[in-house]
Amino acid sequence: MTTYSEKTAQPLLENLKDWDFKADGIEKKFQFKNFTEALGFMVKVGVLAEKMNHHPELFNVYNKVTIRLTTHDPKGLTDKDFKLASQIEEVI
Amino acid sequence: MTTYSEKTAQPLLENLKDWDFKADGIEKKFQFKNFTEALGFMVKVGVLAEKMNHHPELFNVYNKVTIRLTTHDPKGLTDKDFKLASQIEEVI
Amino acid sequence: MTTYSEKTAQPLLENLKDWDFKADGIEKKFQFKNFTEALGFMVKVGVLAEKMNHHPELFNVYNKVTIRLTTHDPKGLTDKDFKLASQIEEVI
Amino acid sequence: MTTYSEKTAQPLLENLKDWDFKADGIEKKFQFKNFTEALGFMVKVGVLAEKMNHHPELFNVYNKVTIRLTTHDPKGLTDKDFKLASQIEEVI
Repeated sequence: MTTYSEKTAQPLLENLKDWDFKADGIEKKFQFKNFTEALGFMVKVGVLAEKMNHHPELFNVYNKVTIRLTTHDPKGLTDKDFKLASQIEEVI
Repeated sequence: MTTYSEKTAQPLLENLKDWDFKADGIEKKFQFKNFTEALGFMVKVGVLAEKMNHHPELFNVYNKVTIRLTTHDPKGLTDKDFKLASQIEEVI
Repeated sequence: MTTYSEKTAQPLLENLKDWDFKADGIEKKFQFKNFTEALGFMVKVGVLAEKMNHHPELFNVYNKVTIRLTTHDPKGLTDKDFKLASQIEEVI
Repeated sequence: MTTYSEKTAQPLLENLKDWDFKADGIEKKFQFKNFTEALGFMVKVGVLAEKMNHHPELFNVYNKVTIRLTTHDPKGLTDKDFKLASQIEEVI
């Protein structure tokens, strides 16, 4: 599986609103109306992640959720991360 | 706390899209794009219900969720049901 | 895929505590300490169901959850239902 | 509301297994059997937090969940954090 550098990731990031290359992965900060909406989102992301067996780094406080996607094997940013990011965009 | 009959409930139901009087309560059938969306919705409804300490009857199969609201004390349809229904409408 | 009758289901039901044959499917009633625990359980069941692409009929009110499993194609009780029931037992 | 220093927090931390003082708050690292269990736990914590209107900093990757509790007003570690930590211990 191909790994992407900050440079080679750019064309794929153009289709992913507000996702940025960060530390050999991609990251997006989400903000919701309140905690309840943030929790609903996290559950949906969890279902997607478990189905792909590819789990994000997820950080939450109140209505804010930060998700960083990176791959462990091979180490770095791969198509799995882009695929999960696309699916996450569908459940916002 | 007031209880509502099918007749006295009508004016309040006018503000609640697709909720109908049913068996001394109110009921709505929701349909989502897929199961993941339905699950996210059920979690949000659960948070709202627990905060109010007023829990719905909830039925789910795949992308369909049916919610019926009724009150145990006093027995019947009360303002608590209308309040939770309004909050549920906000998280669809 | 084999479908099971109430009679042929019995040997498999012996390994599934409190699951009973019901209307060409299997059903179990769960009771939790409170609603929060019931909701956590429903989310875990949801993840399992979505991974198998085999979704239960789920009914919840407060701390009670009833799950009925049946298969649509072929119509009736199949190994998919027994498999999901076994996985559900792991997340109680 | 009282705020606690690392020193004054110690007697209360003795009742909270594996919670440690960290950066004017308290933190615990949880590890579950798998992601599904971690997600069920996060949902239960979310319900508790929303009921108290006191939300944790939550970090998750796969089966690991780190929770840090601190209060914004007054700024620092308060009884609200200890109360939520106690409740979280009940839903592990």
